[in-house]
Amino acid sequence: MIQHIVDYAGITALAASGAVVGIRKGFDLFGIATLAVLSGVGGGILRDVLLDIDPPSALQRWPDVTLCVVVSIVTTVFAKAVIRLGRLVLVLDALGMGFFATSGAAISVDHGASWFAAAVLGMISAVAGSIMRDVVARDVPMVMGPDDMYAAPAMLGSVLYVVIDHAGAQWLAVVVGSLVATLLRLAAITFHWRLPTGPRDLIAHVHRHPVSPHVG
Amino acid sequence: MIQHIVDYAGITALAASGAVVGIRKGFDLFGIATLAVLSGVGGGILRDVLLDIDPPSALQRWPDVTLCVVVSIVTTVFAKAVIRLGRLVLVLDALGMGFFATSGAAISVDHGASWFAAAVLGMISAVAGSIMRDVVARDVPMVMGPDDMYAAPAMLGSVLYVVIDHAGAQWLAVVVGSLVATLLRLAAITFHWRLPTGPRDLIAHVHRHPVSPHVG
Amino acid sequence: MIQHIVDYAGITALAASGAVVGIRKGFDLFGIATLAVLSGVGGGILRDVLLDIDPPSALQRWPDVTLCVVVSIVTTVFAKAVIRLGRLVLVLDALGMGFFATSGAAISVDHGASWFAAAVLGMISAVAGSIMRDVVARDVPMVMGPDDMYAAPAMLGSVLYVVIDHAGAQWLAVVVGSLVATLLRLAAITFHWRLPTGPRDLIAHVHRHPVSPHVG
Repeated sequence: MIQHIVDYAGITALAASGAVVGIRKGFDLFGIATLAVLSGVGGGILRDVLLDIDPPSALQRWPDVTLCVVVSIVTTVFAKAVIRLGRLVLVLDALGMGFFATSGAAISVDHGASWFAAAVLGMISAVAGSIMRDVVARDVPMVMGPDDMYAAPAMLGSVLYVVIDHAGAQWLAVVVGSLVATLLRLAAITFHWRLPTGPRDLIAHVHRHPVSPHVG
Repeated sequence: MIQHIVDYAGITALAASGAVVGIRKGFDLFGIATLAVLSGVGGGILRDVLLDIDPPSALQRWPDVTLCVVVSIVTTVFAKAVIRLGRLVLVLDALGMGFFATSGAAISVDHGASWFAAAVLGMISAVAGSIMRDVVARDVPMVMGPDDMYAAPAMLGSVLYVVIDHAGAQWLAVVVGSLVATLLRLAAITFHWRLPTGPRDLIAHVHRHPVSPHVG
Repeated sequence: MIQHIVDYAGITALAASGAVVGIRKGFDLFGIATLAVLSGVGGGILRDVLLDIDPPSALQRWPDVTLCVVVSIVTTVFAKAVIRLGRLVLVLDALGMGFFATSGAAISVDHGASWFAAAVLGMISAVAGSIMRDVVARDVPMVMGPDDMYAAPAMLGSVLYVVIDHAGAQWLAVVVGSLVATLLRLAAITFHWRLPTGPRDLIAHVHRHPVSPHVG
């Protein structure tokens, strides 16, 4: 029960972030909804394709995509309110990211992935949707740029899941992995923790990405 | 027989649109051919991957990719003539889009997709190639932007197929779904029917996409 | 043995090229590592997905991704030295490309691909990682633009493999296909052999891609 709530909260937050990018890019309702779907379930669909779960469960069952479409319509109608709720969306997003990292790893283990693959696929479940959103919207992927850490917490949560699950405690693995990932992400937002970039003088300052993929 | 003609006409039109984008971007022959292949069969390949048809039939059989490559060469040699034929290409493209939406849904149902998944996958078959073309060519995806409706007719055609097929009339489903999608697309081009965007004052006017993905 | 060395040399060179693009784009360590992984093993992962090898072997086994991550860290720390070694990286990359083209075709034949599909999938194994790198980094894909030939040698190597293997000589197919592809690529770099583009007056000179995806 609780994991369904976290799951849908995460999808909602990610879908809202996608819809906001679409609105700011001037996309039409289809484009906005597509970005919301990519952000909300794209990571899970990629994970399912890599695990040979075909059709991916987010397409085979109707609720996930439908939720993303509804979120995109609500976000479009109440765009200014959603943008004002930016901080709430960031927190929900961190919650969803942490959960996706461990649930993605769990699904991978269940479908025959090695421990190494499960750790990578958990992380992919959590961040690939956001990368797809930015690539399709022609932005530099937010999780790859120099912003506050996002993928590193996902990786850590996913690795923690795999290690603790390997020790035999699956539920503990979900809880600890998700919590650590979410808390580390929230700390990264609060204190602007960032990963290092390469040497500054080698960075080609040509494009700055114009539209923040963050909501607000 | 008739469906093969429509199928190849659609692939030809989509491949020509991809080749024109490649030419205008200054790509070399390989790049032009790759864009033609992505546009022409990319949607079907993505559908096959999501349905677990591996290798995708557009790769396993030689005619589809070969047709795209031939179209890309002809388009490169007679670029100006093809661009002058822009309206014809748009009509062929609308015909192909309508057919891809229903044939994609039909193939999905045959391979175990739920009705929901079949409707989504039909639409993906019809529009994903065009999104891939634009993403690889570094343009804002035409079907997501504020241009004349493209994806909405595809979605409608695909849903109509699923509903009528469910009622037991597969051939009627193909004909009605394809025709409605094609006619709605042609009407959208003629009368500039568009889906709404988000609130105008939230749109970040930074990038305008420089090269029309339409032929002509 | 020898093929493992060539395989890892190719992955190393491709991963280094991805890391350099990430460094120059100002990505953080995660972004740099992701570009290195996409460049190094992205083509093979796409091939495996299209062949229904799930999870893809580059994820299921740990060495390939780990090598890419190590290369990305070393490249970030010694960025200037790696850029100065540009020519060596180009040669290793040509070696890897030639090998990936034939090994990709061989794996495809082993997994039920038709001869046509195997030739295409060999080429995809060799060049798709580089296209993913550039798309995610928001550059025009280097292998599609007007630069020195890259994909055409890969295609030739992959076709040679399929033809010679069909005649019954698999090892000869690997050696001849790889060598021809690598030598043609090295000649293309040396003599600036390029494929033709479309008519020059149709090229829209809007974007020039700002960061060379070549190392050095």
